[in-house]
Amino acid sequence: MSECAKASDYDEVVKQFEYLDHTADVQIHSWGKTVEEAFEHACLGMFNYMTDVDGVLPRKTVEITAEGTDYLSLLYHFMDEFLFLSCTDDYFMARQIEILEFDKEKWKIRARGYGEDFERARHGGKGTEVKAITYSAMKVLPEADKTDIFVIIDI
Amino acid sequence: MSECAKASDYDEVVKQFEYLDHTADVQIHSWGKTVEEAFEHACLGMFNYMTDVDGVLPRKTVEITAEGTDYLSLLYHFMDEFLFLSCTDDYFMARQIEILEFDKEKWKIRARGYGEDFERARHGGKGTEVKAITYSAMKVLPEADKTDIFVIIDI
Repeated sequence: MSECAKASDYDEVVKQFEYLDHTADVQIHSWGKTVEEAFEHACLGMFNYMTDVDGVLPRKTVEITAEGTDYLSLLYHFMDEFLFLSCTDDYFMARQIEILEFDKEKWKIRARGYGEDFERARHGGKGTEVKAITYSAMKVLPEADKTDIFVIIDI
Repeated sequence: MSECAKASDYDEVVKQFEYLDHTADVQIHSWGKTVEEAFEHACLGMFNYMTDVDGVLPRKTVEITAEGTDYLSLLYHFMDEFLFLSCTDDYFMARQIEILEFDKEKWKIRARGYGEDFERARHGGKGTEVKAITYSAMKVLPEADKTDIFVIIDI
């Protein structure tokens, strides 16, 4: 065969196949001196998967409340509230998450997000859609000086 | 806030998170008039996920044999043999797969691949690594005039 052979010398490949499903997930590990900090950064890790959070400006704030029955369900609903904001209306992207209240008896959180609405031109670089938070292998590990969180999101 | 605000006006975002795991899979659906054709195209679908098979030149041939105990295990080992060639030595990429023998009593296949060794400059466009064939939801559905195959690969 000549060294100059190229793909266009050949008939197009017959392709009797297609790709149907595509599922993927990524595990976020976050940490902080307190449970609150670890929660904030788990959520920020989710936003950073959608867009580079360094490129998000703190133009507006949003507030959410979330309830659960323990750390795990509270983390799930806390992140899910922010995920909902990122998927609806103005596609809010956060640069920072601040937990204003964390009630560990009633398992309630009130939190604020600082960020802005998604703009494809500036934020579109990654643009990976987060489909869901999952309980799969979820861990919240509060210690005296540090809390670690592990949470898997579907993308 | 000024309209001219930009990300560099702000302190870099503190990021107390990292991404640990990343698992993904894709389901290939292939078909053919015969079981042989459907097998060939399931395998070609796997190669096409690594690199655009239209860009692969038929510079060399390789041969594999695979054994199983039924359609599913035979498909698994048939694809796995080609996956092995793509991961080792010269990183063989196929443009076409031809089944030379398909023994449905002894569940043996002998097949030939037409293609060439991977060259990053020409084939690197996609470059998605296929990590494994899986038995998950695998189906081989032989009918009189057509066979459909469904196989999920880990990427």
